[in-house]
Amino acid sequence: MTLEPVMTHEEVQAYTLEVFPESAMYGWKVEEVSGGRIAMSMQTSQEHLRPGGTVSGPTMFALADVTAYVLILAHIGKVALAVTTNLNINFLRKPEPGALRSTGRLVKLGKRLAVCEVHIYSGSSDEMVAQATATYSIPPR
Amino acid sequence: MTLEPVMTHEEVQAYTLEVFPESAMYGWKVEEVSGGRIAMSMQTSQEHLRPGGTVSGPTMFALADVTAYVLILAHIGKVALAVTTNLNINFLRKPEPGALRSTGRLVKLGKRLAVCEVHIYSGSSDEMVAQATATYSIPPR
Amino acid sequence: MTLEPVMTHEEVQAYTLEVFPESAMYGWKVEEVSGGRIAMSMQTSQEHLRPGGTVSGPTMFALADVTAYVLILAHIGKVALAVTTNLNINFLRKPEPGALRSTGRLVKLGKRLAVCEVHIYSGSSDEMVAQATATYSIPPR
Amino acid sequence: MTLEPVMTHEEVQAYTLEVFPESAMYGWKVEEVSGGRIAMSMQTSQEHLRPGGTVSGPTMFALADVTAYVLILAHIGKVALAVTTNLNINFLRKPEPGALRSTGRLVKLGKRLAVCEVHIYSGSSDEMVAQATATYSIPPR
Repeated sequence: MTLEPVMTHEEVQAYTLEVFPESAMYGWKVEEVSGGRIAMSMQTSQEHLRPGGTVSGPTMFALADVTAYVLILAHIGKVALAVTTNLNINFLRKPEPGALRSTGRLVKLGKRLAVCEVHIYSGSSDEMVAQATATYSIPPR
Repeated sequence: MTLEPVMTHEEVQAYTLEVFPESAMYGWKVEEVSGGRIAMSMQTSQEHLRPGGTVSGPTMFALADVTAYVLILAHIGKVALAVTTNLNINFLRKPEPGALRSTGRLVKLGKRLAVCEVHIYSGSSDEMVAQATATYSIPPR
Repeated sequence: MTLEPVMTHEEVQAYTLEVFPESAMYGWKVEEVSGGRIAMSMQTSQEHLRPGGTVSGPTMFALADVTAYVLILAHIGKVALAVTTNLNINFLRKPEPGALRSTGRLVKLGKRLAVCEVHIYSGSSDEMVAQATATYSIPPR
Repeated sequence: MTLEPVMTHEEVQAYTLEVFPESAMYGWKVEEVSGGRIAMSMQTSQEHLRPGGTVSGPTMFALADVTAYVLILAHIGKVALAVTTNLNINFLRKPEPGALRSTGRLVKLGKRLAVCEVHIYSGSSDEMVAQATATYSIPPR
């Protein structure tokens, strides 16, 4: 499977913010897109934190979901209506307060379904704080 | 397995809001707790909506997660530090705008792990919009 | 969602054994089919056991998978090529040796995807030994 | 997280076959173990095949499960009673008949829980046929 992006990281970020403007509240940014892979970051703000400063579960879920969405769109183009059908997330360690980073990998890009693995890291640590697998349904084109 | 709650629905709601005050932003309410079961509701506000009025994925994830947390606490008592280790969610149908309802069922309540099934409904429809399975790790007491 | 079976439990059992004759090795039997629901049993033989008599994980996986497959076919008819795309299984308790029972419930039956919850019990106990959620992809008809 | 194996690949294979002799029926072999990683192979025999020669779902489940088990034991030593609590598997492509290969990666090795990602390939292809995430509960030592 040779996967090549069809949008640059700037293009896919701009398109996603256009079709899901509310996702801007998560402060996410596409750092890099390459064949079947993506790297993103998220500036967590006060509302995404639990007492003690740790990042909330829904915030990590949101990052996993947007990482998979942007990764898929970067490879199939402007198909806004791709929808998450399944997301399985493992919370591994308590994240540090502050920024999150994510990496995503397409393990399948079919005509009807795409499956991605997402790894989430926090702060400057290279220990994974969450691991997710997301399936998206791709509408007929 | 005969499961009996150790807190009333008012008690477990008050305790959860005390230890996770930020969860109040989701406008959730415990409607009923009985042996191994729970019913909850959530008043989605503007920030939980996607354009067109549909409820966002992170909002449904948050409801599934809090439903499982409150259900477990209702049966084990004031163990604030129970943490989600895994949450698997299937998005089944596009929710209607407005309130969400959830039901939860404990399928295992062990000393170290608890597993719950959660079903989410929207508006006045009895069609399920999301189905989740959540695992919580329970700290040694 | 009013779901009505389109095959009787005898018909769907006969059809499944015709298209997947190797599934007979699991000794499964459809006990009952009703709107969106199924009940099955499995006679575990020596090869499905672990030392000490407990039923192996792959055997419980196989029962969860065939329960979902037969449940879906009972509601959509003779579509042999429905394929499992995702199966998430929680092992809850050590099963007793001997027969397994399963119940299945369709939580979504769409044109392209069907999602089922499956509960597995062992021996004469009413404690669940495994809980699974399965997604099947349904080919265009 | 610097993970170092505490058993060689020959040692962990011999120990696993000693404590789970019935797993020999799957014809699995540990090819390599390194820090947090494993590579295995499985010679599928006639009983693991579906008509047309494709490998069955329960066989891929069994390989994912044994890959995670052996990977964990290679890093924690002879703890036979580690048990699978959750396994989430995505079936991505129809496998070719013949041998399967798997790779595993520990994403968390805690005192009570270990989480692994497993990728499965078939024949000589480098396209993934299944992707799994497994959680094991580790008994107190």
